[in-house]
Amino acid sequence: MFKSLKIQPGRLLETIHKTADLYGAKYRWGDHPTETGLRRLSLDDEDKGARDWFAKEVKDLGCELKIDNVGNMFAIYPGKDMTALPTGVGSHLDSQPTGGRYDGPLGVLSGLEILRTIKENGYVPNYPIALINWTNEEGARFPAPLLGSSVWSGTTKKEDIYKVNSVTDSPPRSVLSELERIGYKGSVESSHKVNPIACHFEIHIEQAAFLEKANKKIGVVQGIQAFDWQEIVIRGKAQHTETTPMEGRADALLTASKMIIKGNEIAKKYGGLCSTGIIDVEPHVFNVIPEYVKFSLDTHHYENDKLDLMLKEVKDSFDAIAAEVDGPLTVEYLPLFTSRSTEFDQECIDSVRQAAIDVVGEDNIMDITARAGHDSKETSGIVPTSMVFIPCRDGISHAPTEYSTPEQVENGFKVLMNAVLSYDLLRKKKADAASA
Amino acid sequence: MFKSLKIQPGRLLETIHKTADLYGAKYRWGDHPTETGLRRLSLDDEDKGARDWFAKEVKDLGCELKIDNVGNMFAIYPGKDMTALPTGVGSHLDSQPTGGRYDGPLGVLSGLEILRTIKENGYVPNYPIALINWTNEEGARFPAPLLGSSVWSGTTKKEDIYKVNSVTDSPPRSVLSELERIGYKGSVESSHKVNPIACHFEIHIEQAAFLEKANKKIGVVQGIQAFDWQEIVIRGKAQHTETTPMEGRADALLTASKMIIKGNEIAKKYGGLCSTGIIDVEPHVFNVIPEYVKFSLDTHHYENDKLDLMLKEVKDSFDAIAAEVDGPLTVEYLPLFTSRSTEFDQECIDSVRQAAIDVVGEDNIMDITARAGHDSKETSGIVPTSMVFIPCRDGISHAPTEYSTPEQVENGFKVLMNAVLSYDLLRKKKADAASA
Repeated sequence: MFKSLKIQPGRLLETIHKTADLYGAKYRWGDHPTETGLRRLSLDDEDKGARDWFAKEVKDLGCELKIDNVGNMFAIYPGKDMTALPTGVGSHLDSQPTGGRYDGPLGVLSGLEILRTIKENGYVPNYPIALINWTNEEGARFPAPLLGSSVWSGTTKKEDIYKVNSVTDSPPRSVLSELERIGYKGSVESSHKVNPIACHFEIHIEQAAFLEKANKKIGVVQGIQAFDWQEIVIRGKAQHTETTPMEGRADALLTASKMIIKGNEIAKKYGGLCSTGIIDVEPHVFNVIPEYVKFSLDTHHYENDKLDLMLKEVKDSFDAIAAEVDGPLTVEYLPLFTSRSTEFDQECIDSVRQAAIDVVGEDNIMDITARAGHDSKETSGIVPTSMVFIPCRDGISHAPTEYSTPEQVENGFKVLMNAVLSYDLLRKKKADAASA
Repeated sequence: MFKSLKIQPGRLLETIHKTADLYGAKYRWGDHPTETGLRRLSLDDEDKGARDWFAKEVKDLGCELKIDNVGNMFAIYPGKDMTALPTGVGSHLDSQPTGGRYDGPLGVLSGLEILRTIKENGYVPNYPIALINWTNEEGARFPAPLLGSSVWSGTTKKEDIYKVNSVTDSPPRSVLSELERIGYKGSVESSHKVNPIACHFEIHIEQAAFLEKANKKIGVVQGIQAFDWQEIVIRGKAQHTETTPMEGRADALLTASKMIIKGNEIAKKYGGLCSTGIIDVEPHVFNVIPEYVKFSLDTHHYENDKLDLMLKEVKDSFDAIAAEVDGPLTVEYLPLFTSRSTEFDQECIDSVRQAAIDVVGEDNIMDITARAGHDSKETSGIVPTSMVFIPCRDGISHAPTEYSTPEQVENGFKVLMNAVLSYDLLRKKKADAASA
């Protein structure tokens, strides 16, 4: 299927490395020029550079570029029927602060490689293809993961999102001010109603080692696990570390330490995940017991019920830890973002599965549920969606040493392209059947 | 004794509040205008304001003002014999970031009140009095506690101290650059050899509740407990919180949490103190497991041997915690400051005790060992030293609600003045006996 389309081996990987080199390459870990990580924080100068480059490339390919008012970029490549909704292919160009070269850029640039390939081959799809760069998927600079796709899907509100402040700048900057600063607050309303697509496909590195350990080449993603992001605020009592007896202290950091350990224990008990990536203390002085601690809690489970049980046990046990403190101490739970588990669309999954069978053979594929949030999580609530996973070395992601082999990248690209184009054929077949 | 000296009731407290209001009042906790805390970080603009005010006051009283090259201020009030070393009275004008109004300023301003009182009464001491404002006693802005007094005493080196960076500025600023910026890098070499004093007296709030609980009015300080400041650095592995299984993580923050709890347990076991006021994580992102954590460890004990045992157990148990981690993880111990326990000079202690008996009566005094570091710790290695403690409400210190009653403040001042002046007489008596 689509075997007649001639592809340019290695060009996708070249594009990945070229754009990494130009926009955010950092944290060298090996001798080869491409062996660095990436720091391209959403809406920063590096991200603006990558966006400007992307805009030029897609326009050169003949795309119409629509930018919505949270900075999502939709490059519309023409199909035969321009009155129909476009087939969506997307991911994100932003990275973690100490991120790797693959992650989101693999998804956007694989989509770009599809457009380049079909253009070179003179292949015209039945329907337009929307290649999408979603804003701030990472949630790293602005603690609102899936920012762009969640506004588009309607699970978050643009007005709230605009006010979110960055955690990597001092002083913090808001989403709105940074959108305006880099010129990516577009004129299109960010909404699936105003700016719809027909479906969404996305390729991503697995970010875990299940494929690698099972020696499989492609993961056919069935859905995404449930997760919850919250912040825990503890208010204790600032006292002199050198004079205050150990008994009777209301040490906010000691209390937080116990909670962090407890969260880990709960995750193990339920077979889920519970992690703390951020902790801040005040007054942040050597000889003062912290009176204020805020820490992040990122909780995941494949099953919604289990996630609910984990979150209940987190709250109950944290309350109990706080209640055991001698001195006056309060704990507060600030919800940030919660997401139920998602099952992808069966026709989209089937398109990915058949493409994977065609490219790497049935023995080399594996059904898999994504653990991390992805923009496809947001699109799947609105339109048929699925994802392609490729292995990554040691399952490492969100770190400079993130790595997939050239073969893995090329396999993934071929599967994505075949899935997208076969879904385009399926849409046509169904439309013809419906109008027949 | 010295009952003929007329004092101005309430003036000291007025001075404390006036200078707090002018230079760093912050963190209101009550309705009365004076019910706020203080933020006057060493060598910041508020500290400069307080220093400038102090310089003017002491010059108006007829003092010669010497400023050494780490910013220590020596106001020399004239005595009968100007060839003899001055009797030292000192403390510090800097505060914690969320500090109170008493702490160091009580010490410096009580010394100022002595000078005002004897001048008004026409009382001329046998020897000059050096009223000293020591730089960065708190170690809060620059993590080098007793900065000024330790350079003066020779336990730290000026060249090292100049390079210490602030932990409350972003980007950090060095001690040297801030001394130069506010114009307090004086011309006098900071050294007890170049700029000697005969002895050192200091009044301070207790910063604990032993006096309050025992219903005593004055603490006669016998010495200062041993302590150790270090930083612990943990290097683990940054991984995606949403995809990395709980098993096999090298979570630097989870490891630090276990260490913080262990440190607390060790302190309780030995009857000492062990506290963490600062913790910093990298990359400080919601969905990345911290790969780097640095936290402070402030360890105290009255006995040197017990402190040594505590520190050994801290290191052994932290090493064991690190060794239990599945993934690659290292722990590093960075020594910052260590201090053996100190016994004050018996004659100075006796001067304080007799003064306290005279002012509040024998039933209202208590022998006490200081838990916190004080500039008197540094002077006591060089010259006879002792301290006066007054109670503070609930033992709270290093917090905005730090409070002592007007009566407690006045009692303390009277004891300090009587101790200083009687020690001046004792010096004279001993000098006369020696020359007889």
